[in-house]
Amino acid sequence: MSWRRSSVVERRTHKPYVGGSNPSAATSPPIKVRIMGKSVYLDYAATTPVDREAYKAMCPYLSDKFGNPSSVHRRGQEAKKALDGARIKAAELLNCKPEEIVFTSGGTESDNLALRGVMGGARKTKRNHLIVSKIEHPAALKTAEALEKSGFEVDYLPVDKEGIIRIDELEKLIRKETALVSIIYANNEIGTIQPIKEISKLIKEKNSETLFHTDATQAFNYLDCNVERLGVDLLSLSGQKLYGPKGVGLLYIKQGTKVTPVQTGGEHEMGKRAGTENIPGIVGMAKAMELVAEKREEESRRLQELRNKLIEGIRASIKGAFLSGSFTNRLCNNLNFCFSGVEGEALVMSLDVKGIMGSSGSACSSAKLEPSYVLAALGIPQELAQGSLRLTLGRNTTAEDIDYVLEVLPEVVERLRSISAIG
Amino acid sequence: MSWRRSSVVERRTHKPYVGGSNPSAATSPPIKVRIMGKSVYLDYAATTPVDREAYKAMCPYLSDKFGNPSSVHRRGQEAKKALDGARIKAAELLNCKPEEIVFTSGGTESDNLALRGVMGGARKTKRNHLIVSKIEHPAALKTAEALEKSGFEVDYLPVDKEGIIRIDELEKLIRKETALVSIIYANNEIGTIQPIKEISKLIKEKNSETLFHTDATQAFNYLDCNVERLGVDLLSLSGQKLYGPKGVGLLYIKQGTKVTPVQTGGEHEMGKRAGTENIPGIVGMAKAMELVAEKREEESRRLQELRNKLIEGIRASIKGAFLSGSFTNRLCNNLNFCFSGVEGEALVMSLDVKGIMGSSGSACSSAKLEPSYVLAALGIPQELAQGSLRLTLGRNTTAEDIDYVLEVLPEVVERLRSISAIG
Repeated sequence: MSWRRSSVVERRTHKPYVGGSNPSAATSPPIKVRIMGKSVYLDYAATTPVDREAYKAMCPYLSDKFGNPSSVHRRGQEAKKALDGARIKAAELLNCKPEEIVFTSGGTESDNLALRGVMGGARKTKRNHLIVSKIEHPAALKTAEALEKSGFEVDYLPVDKEGIIRIDELEKLIRKETALVSIIYANNEIGTIQPIKEISKLIKEKNSETLFHTDATQAFNYLDCNVERLGVDLLSLSGQKLYGPKGVGLLYIKQGTKVTPVQTGGEHEMGKRAGTENIPGIVGMAKAMELVAEKREEESRRLQELRNKLIEGIRASIKGAFLSGSFTNRLCNNLNFCFSGVEGEALVMSLDVKGIMGSSGSACSSAKLEPSYVLAALGIPQELAQGSLRLTLGRNTTAEDIDYVLEVLPEVVERLRSISAIG
Repeated sequence: MSWRRSSVVERRTHKPYVGGSNPSAATSPPIKVRIMGKSVYLDYAATTPVDREAYKAMCPYLSDKFGNPSSVHRRGQEAKKALDGARIKAAELLNCKPEEIVFTSGGTESDNLALRGVMGGARKTKRNHLIVSKIEHPAALKTAEALEKSGFEVDYLPVDKEGIIRIDELEKLIRKETALVSIIYANNEIGTIQPIKEISKLIKEKNSETLFHTDATQAFNYLDCNVERLGVDLLSLSGQKLYGPKGVGLLYIKQGTKVTPVQTGGEHEMGKRAGTENIPGIVGMAKAMELVAEKREEESRRLQELRNKLIEGIRASIKGAFLSGSFTNRLCNNLNFCFSGVEGEALVMSLDVKGIMGSSGSACSSAKLEPSYVLAALGIPQELAQGSLRLTLGRNTTAEDIDYVLEVLPEVVERLRSISAIG
């Protein structure tokens, strides 16, 4: 399996077409020249390709087996069986009960259901306090802000310079009214891994009724997601970050946890999420989860080695390159450098011209030109944060790709610095 | 293209396997015998198969073109281009601007965004009154009930015995505080078509600031969905009801309409719906919409003829069969009969054994055994409503299928009546 493609570049001959009796002799129309170009995708945190096996698993449900799982007849029951099977598989991989899995339309919906659902239920009990870290994904952070506007009390937990939450601060913030704490397992921009087990222990010691949610969308491919070992009450996953399709995600909700549905209608998903289930997407996601889990450790080791080589190479060849976040508590596939005197957007675009696909900040906020709130939370000055480059490795990344980046990146940074107004 | 399949029936030989030195001679293990069985799908209102062309259009985005449309690089921009193209296509088919289309995860989310989004925005202006019909899909009806619980004022508009909304009642209910009216274009159970143009005219005359939403998920395949002609401010569609995939839908939101996002996070969908866009689903839905629109009139005529033949045949061959809803203002592909002395669930299951797939009530509520709230709203007594059968025709329905139903259904109803405790 390979996602590499040669680029197609449209080239005009130097002489423009000017008409005449025999145009083909005098000039040529535009011709397409296929150039074997590099295509190095290093943006796996933005989205992953769909695993071929997962794709194959989906196909019957996009074709013959198209039933609605709520239908009583055979076509419906066939779809129901696929849904049940996917739920059992996902539950096994998270070490929970099938009925604790609610399938959603993606990571963003999962985070919304966790935060809005728990706080919506808690409103009645007057426990109106929510704690989120300052470096949550926007799906949780913006939702916390929306909840704050609608009358809930929200505290935004600071992080240290590596991006690890201030556990002493968390301890101080938890009180009787605290209904929920939400902390991202591994950050999407800087890859910092939080000590989830330690945090869950602390939370339950301080207030046994406070629930704990973690967004594990970036973590699942590389870290332990056994919900019992982690001690979490809710956990979000996204299909498109784990080599499954877009448009599907899940939320683990521990049995007995009170969650008010956010999307109402039919009695789907144990009454927790209305709407006909996305059977092909759900089947594809469960299959992709299985395939990731099978090779999790082996693949983590492989990527960590490649990633470390890339970090060392960048440090050795580019001055003024600062690795943001932690080196030790970091996702094995993530690096995020800030280059002084460089504008991140220009860097990403220049690399794209050379066939290297990375990002500045995360894809979810890359449309905006504001500097990253995650880097700001680490205390990185704005002018440095503006020059950030995130490269995230994945299943198709090779040693050759890393060599190519180390060949191209220093030149590109140098050129941008030489023409930069910032520097 | 055909979705028909022969059924596989597992048959045991009469002699059970009892072991022995030569088991294959003495007995046989279970064998599978392929029987060319009938498979007549008449549940297109529950869900449709995915059009092969739409499926083909999706495939590249489940494979090579897997980018996140928020990514700046080529892989992202490729996805962005597909998203923009689908939005333009959908907009053309509804006669609106591309930026008035918000892609969602399905019809249920679209209805939720319409009702919660508009009422959420209206709360600030103290216009806290919502009107919905009594025969809305649960996605709108349950959402209205949830809004009522959270403090909004909701009126439930009655319908006449054909299922047409009482327009005189609507006129009385609209007042200064009415922020939104939501009325389903064509009902999912009984297929009754509402006079949307007339309703929108009335609403705007009574209160020009009252918004009008219609759920057109069942209507799109057969009825005019030009939003300008209809005069609606919001319109919901679902991919899986129009030969597109599951897990995708859209909401038309007229420019200038204030809608508070329900799902928060990244700045996707013009800030109205956070979450990475389901590119394959969106591309498939837009393609499916195009294909439906191309043959809408021709296909409507064909299905109406088949459906009318089925209605006449049932009336002629089965006593105590009552067509619920309207005959004239009815979707061309829908029929819904109540059979006295029959339990609908048993009827659906008995037909399934004969290879005919229909439903009793809608798929969204068929898991429950309560009689349909839609039939109750028409004034149909509970004991009769319990014997309802909905058959909905579609693209693969043939004259042969109709003949087969007319051959099987009278026998099945007679048999059920003979063993029924109700009758």
